[in-house]
This record gives sequence, C-alpha cells and structure tokens, in this order.
Amino acid sequence: MTASSCFKHTKQQFHLPEDLVYLDGNSLGPLPLAATEKVSATLEQEWGELLIQGWNKAGWMAAPSKTGDRLATMLGAPAGSIVMGDTLSIKVFQAVDAAMDLVPDRAVVLSDSGNFPTDLYMVEGLLKNRSAGKLKVVEPEHLASAIDPSVAVVLLTGVDYRTGRLHDTASIVKKAHAVGATVVLDLAHSAGAIPVNLHDENPDFAVGCTYKYLNGGPGAPAFIYVAPRHQQRIRPALSGWLGHAAPFAFDQHYTPADGVERMRVGTPPVVALSILDAALDIWEQVSMDAVRQASIKLSEQFIAGVESQCPELVLASPRDAQQRGSQVSFRHPEGYAIVQALISAGVVGDFRAPDILRFGFTPLYLDSDDVAKAVERLALIMREGRWDQPHFKIKAAVT
Amino acid sequence: MTASSCFKHTKQQFHLPEDLVYLDGNSLGPLPLAATEKVSATLEQEWGELLIQGWNKAGWMAAPSKTGDRLATMLGAPAGSIVMGDTLSIKVFQAVDAAMDLVPDRAVVLSDSGNFPTDLYMVEGLLKNRSAGKLKVVEPEHLASAIDPSVAVVLLTGVDYRTGRLHDTASIVKKAHAVGATVVLDLAHSAGAIPVNLHDENPDFAVGCTYKYLNGGPGAPAFIYVAPRHQQRIRPALSGWLGHAAPFAFDQHYTPADGVERMRVGTPPVVALSILDAALDIWEQVSMDAVRQASIKLSEQFIAGVESQCPELVLASPRDAQQRGSQVSFRHPEGYAIVQALISAGVVGDFRAPDILRFGFTPLYLDSDDVAKAVERLALIMREGRWDQPHFKIKAAVT
Repeated sequence: MTASSCFKHTKQQFHLPEDLVYLDGNSLGPLPLAATEKVSATLEQEWGELLIQGWNKAGWMAAPSKTGDRLATMLGAPAGSIVMGDTLSIKVFQAVDAAMDLVPDRAVVLSDSGNFPTDLYMVEGLLKNRSAGKLKVVEPEHLASAIDPSVAVVLLTGVDYRTGRLHDTASIVKKAHAVGATVVLDLAHSAGAIPVNLHDENPDFAVGCTYKYLNGGPGAPAFIYVAPRHQQRIRPALSGWLGHAAPFAFDQHYTPADGVERMRVGTPPVVALSILDAALDIWEQVSMDAVRQASIKLSEQFIAGVESQCPELVLASPRDAQQRGSQVSFRHPEGYAIVQALISAGVVGDFRAPDILRFGFTPLYLDSDDVAKAVERLALIMREGRWDQPHFKIKAAVT
Repeated sequence: MTASSCFKHTKQQFHLPEDLVYLDGNSLGPLPLAATEKVSATLEQEWGELLIQGWNKAGWMAAPSKTGDRLATMLGAPAGSIVMGDTLSIKVFQAVDAAMDLVPDRAVVLSDSGNFPTDLYMVEGLLKNRSAGKLKVVEPEHLASAIDPSVAVVLLTGVDYRTGRLHDTASIVKKAHAVGATVVLDLAHSAGAIPVNLHDENPDFAVGCTYKYLNGGPGAPAFIYVAPRHQQRIRPALSGWLGHAAPFAFDQHYTPADGVERMRVGTPPVVALSILDAALDIWEQVSMDAVRQASIKLSEQFIAGVESQCPELVLASPRDAQQRGSQVSFRHPEGYAIVQALISAGVVGDFRAPDILRFGFTPLYLDSDDVAKAVERLALIMREGRWDQPHFKIKAAVT
C-alpha cells in the first residue's frame, strides 16, 4: 500500500467541496461525514428523549474525560491526564496560572515572539491580578538560551503558527526542569499534525484546540493535560462547579476534584464533543507516524513545485522537513491578494500578517493529486499576475 | 385567547417525549424541533461547504454579538451590551473581576448563601490571585442590610436556584450604588423565567446561561452584559484574542476591543450558537409578560394541588407568586427518593440537596393538563408510599 493510497479510506469520510483543494486544515479542519448523524442522534435521541437525564444516561457528564482519554492515547499521555472543555485561551490561562503556583518564588513567564498571540494575551491578563509576574518574550531561536533560574514558566507552542518551525520541545523541557522552571506546551499546531508523546516530552502542562488538524469543527472544545505528578497539587484559578469534588453536593466552598478533573470549569459542551468524537473515530483508523510521513511527502511535493514555478515566493518555513510541522509558508509582499486570488481559483490556504502565505498538509483528506492541482493553480496566478486586482486586496474580518 | 391556548403554537415547536411531564426546564430546557435542521445546515452548508470561509461568509465571527443582541432585546438591554460565549462560570469570573477593578480601593465581594455555589467558587478562585479580596457570604434575607461602604461588589442571583425566591434586584442595585459598590447579577434562573429589564434594574454586569429556560441545549453558551457606562473602562482578566481590538493583526500585545466585545475570549461556539438561535426563534414569538402570567397560573395550580393532596410535602418557595421565579420547591426528608419515583412515573422534576424537590413551570411547552397530570402522579406516589424502595435511593452522578 502506498502512502497516498493508505489514506483513501479516510478521505472518503470527509465532506469536501467539489474541485476544491483545501490547504487550510491547520486553521479549520473539514467536516467528518459522520458528524451530522452523530449530532442529530445527540440532539434527538439524547437531549430530545432523555432531557435532563442525558447527564447520566447518555454519559454527558463523563464526556469531557472520556474524550480526553481518547486524545491522551493519541498524544502519548496516560488515561486520566487530559480533560476537554472551554477554549484554548481559557486552557492557557489555567495552565500558566497553575504552573506559576508550582514555582511560587519566581515571577517570569518566558515565551517567544513566534507564539500565537492569544497565549501572550492570556498571560498579560493573568498577570494583571497576580501580585508578582513578568512576561518576557524573546525571539524563538533565543528561547532555550533565555531559560535561567529566574524563570517560573516556559510557555511555548511546539509548532510556529506562521512558519511551521518546530521547537525542540523535549530539550527545552529538560533545560527548564534543570533550572527548576515548569513548562506549558501549546499543541495547537501539533496535535494531529506531528507525532506527540507527552510522556517522553515531559511538559508539566499541555493545552490545545481541536478544530484544526483534529477536525472537531468551528468552536470545538479545547483540552488540557496536567502531568500526573502535579495533578493533586493544583488549586485552579477557574474553580468552577464541575471541577469540584462533589458538584451536586452544592457545598458553599470549593474543594477540587481528583486529578485533572479539577481543570473542568462549567457545563460541558455536549454537542460539540459529539462532533469531535466523530472526528476522532477517523483519527483512530490511522497511525500518527504514517500521517507524518505522508504529510512530509505532500509538503515536499508542494515546496518543490512552488519553488520551480513561482520564483517570486520565498520559502518562510524551514527547508528541512524534520524542522517543520505540517504546514508550509511562503513570503510575498502581496501575500494577502495572492491568497485571495488562489481561493477564488479553488485552492484554500490562508494569510498571516504581514506577508505569510500559509498552507497546511493534512493527509487524512489530501493527496498528491490535490497538491499538484494547487501548485498548478498557484503558478498560473503568479505567472499571469492574476492576484493584482483591487477586489483581492479588500481585507475581510477574518483572514 | 386563553393564557393556556396562546402557547399551543409554541408547545408544538418542541420535541417532548410521549406522556412525559417535564418540570425541569429550569435545569435543561427541551429540544426545539427546528434545532436539528438548523445544526445540519450549519454543519453541511456552512462548515462543510465554506470551510474556513465560514468565519466571514456564514457570519460565524459576528455570531456571539448577533445572538447577544437578540438576548439584549429580551432582557431590556441596548444592542451592543451583551455578548455570548464560554460558560456561566467563566462569565461570573470575568464580571466579578471587572467589577472589582471598578472599585479598586475596596476588597469585599458580598454574596448570599442562596447563590448558586459555582458563583462563590469562581470568586474563591479569582481571589486566589488578587492581592486584596474577601468573599463575604450572608443569608439571603440579610444581603441588602450587609451592603456597606466596605463592599466592592455585590454578587447576587436574581432567583434562588433551590427555592425560587426572588431578590428585589432593583432595590439592591440602588442600595449598592448609593454606597459606591458595583453589582453583578446572575440571571441563570431569571432569563426566560421572569421579565428582566436590565436598563431599569441597572446592574453593572449581568451574566447567565442559556440551557435552562432559554432552551439552548446541553452545553449552550453563556452570556455577559456590561452596562454601557463601564464598557470602555474594563481591562479583561481573560484577555483572549477574540476580545482583541484587531484579532487578525496578531499584535504581540493585547488591546481590548471596543465595548462588550472585549469580553469575548476564544473561538466562538458556532454550532452551539446555531442551536440557541433556533430556541430564540421560538422566544421571539411570545411576550415575556404573557409567559410570566402563564407560569404563575401553572405554579399556583401545582401548589394548590400538591398542598391539598400531599400534606407531607412542605412548600419551600415563597407563597406569594410575586416573590417567586418560575419554579416551585417543596421539602421532604426523602426528597431524593420521591423525585426518582416521580421520574419513573413520567414526571421529571429534580432534587437539590439536602431535601428540596424542585419543579419548573415553563409555559412555552407546558399547560394546565400537564400540571394536573403531575399532581395526580405525585399524589399517588405519596399516598401509596411508592418512593420507599431501595432503587429510588441510589444517587446518580447528576441529581
């Protein structure tokens, strides 16, 4: 079985618009065909028929842990170490807060300028209320060397959202632990993109979203991993009733639930979790190593094609596939207009300010024919200057 | 048109299991029939076909404000003062944090023991990080008299989750403002239950969930209201990228968006919002005053029936309908078993520790025939002691 053919059976399980080449699964994965039926069942057979009893009889209350365990298997983490809920921004807040509490005599949260901005924003908000705290942001290549004994928490995103550049997570974790710092790892562009093994990489916390490579849909719930060694020591700042040891005892005071369950906050996103479950049903049919191999192959095909046919586009991602996540970026001063022209030609990538054209390679539903088509359409746009039209330059709300 | 008949057209728009009397809409409202189709459209026509472009073309990015404006109309608030997202617990955290910032020289958050516990838990978590802060909890009837110039924030839930007792919100707000305190009003058991006019009641912040009376489904998004006079002054603690002035500029630093939009945090719950929209389509066919009148009528019918036929049950709610929300509670030492026996007889209410049997009256899908049936079945259970069986006493995870 070739790398390409072994994903034919997964490609058939997604809703993909006719003749569209979708290279933006790094931003929002496509719809799993089974999701509609799954959601209808959740609505009609569970909510509709069971009503309030769905919390027990349909397993809604346990769903954040059950789905968390499915992700844990994918991410090399033990059962009971991941729980679903909220959004990634909220999970970053929870993780950095808890990580700071573990190192109470230090104030510095260290991150890098390649991190996704919301991670930095959430730390800014967290530090508004913490009496001591300082966010230090360095260039990505200086992150490792900036880890010193003043650092409480290293907050890093494993894969740069713009360039796809990989951090050497395991060695950064080792360096941080050697000086007594903790690590919060953001897996937004890693989960479903590259093999992740939380046991081996050994961060203290990890967080991620599920609407990108994992194909959980717009607004899909986020996840948080807490290393088992820390779980019982954490006093959550977002101490909601569903993270309480006994939510239905309605005690006046908060007592954290056992383990990672204390990172739950409010009522779980039942319907969104059922969509995500449909997406994970597909993920469980493949090995992450095979996905990674196929993604590298597609990425290399794309880079080679673009570099030979579109010399104006400059590779922004590391050339070495081992240094890249599952996305490839090019730079061009008119990147925004080029991406718009490309979309109108049926190839969806995205633009990231100031000049990045970003393309995601997602073997579950993308094959080498798609990549060839994308290169061909991009080459035509560049060759004929088709992007140079006013309507391709009007910025939309979401880019 | 009688009060009962005027809701026939709304009752037809819900999925209600055959022969079930559902008196738990105060905990989880039933499924609007239109929700399945609406969600399927969101999945297949929007997510499936538009993919990443759904954020612009299907209006996903604006959805939290658009749905917020629909709620604002229901709650007597101006457009642009409510935004949807996250869970109620998170919204309590945001509101109390912002309310404390408005009164920086004071430390006390005042609440009452009738408040829903998660509100108190979230304040405990918030105060973990704030250098000065004290949660003071008094009995509900002493809340007003405990408001003094040491109080920064009064956190009150308009309707007591156990007894349905109403706070006189407007007068508490007046008293708080007179001493320079701010008010966070939790509308969990008010929105869709009683007429609410945020303009007249004048709290500084209001928060609520949408899965109870509003029928938004399990895990439906919460909402937050910020009084227009405060919106530009707030520096959110949960400063996520979608509350940023320019989320897609990917600035390194957080700059709050205009107005209430800054209370957005992460990616909006697109699918859950489409379900809620289906529910609000029904709400927009009725007047809240008519709902209130009908709810009082149903509640009075239930109280009269239960008191005449089940003398062992002691009314826990205020007898005066004007002092009650849309739910009625009774006390019995074996409340849990009685509720279980009642559920097995096709009448769903719920139990709240230690001894409360709680019943919600929701005219959108409940009429006087239903109430008569509920009284009859409850009376039979009490008369014959049918609740006194071991299997009715086994506590489920969710009660």
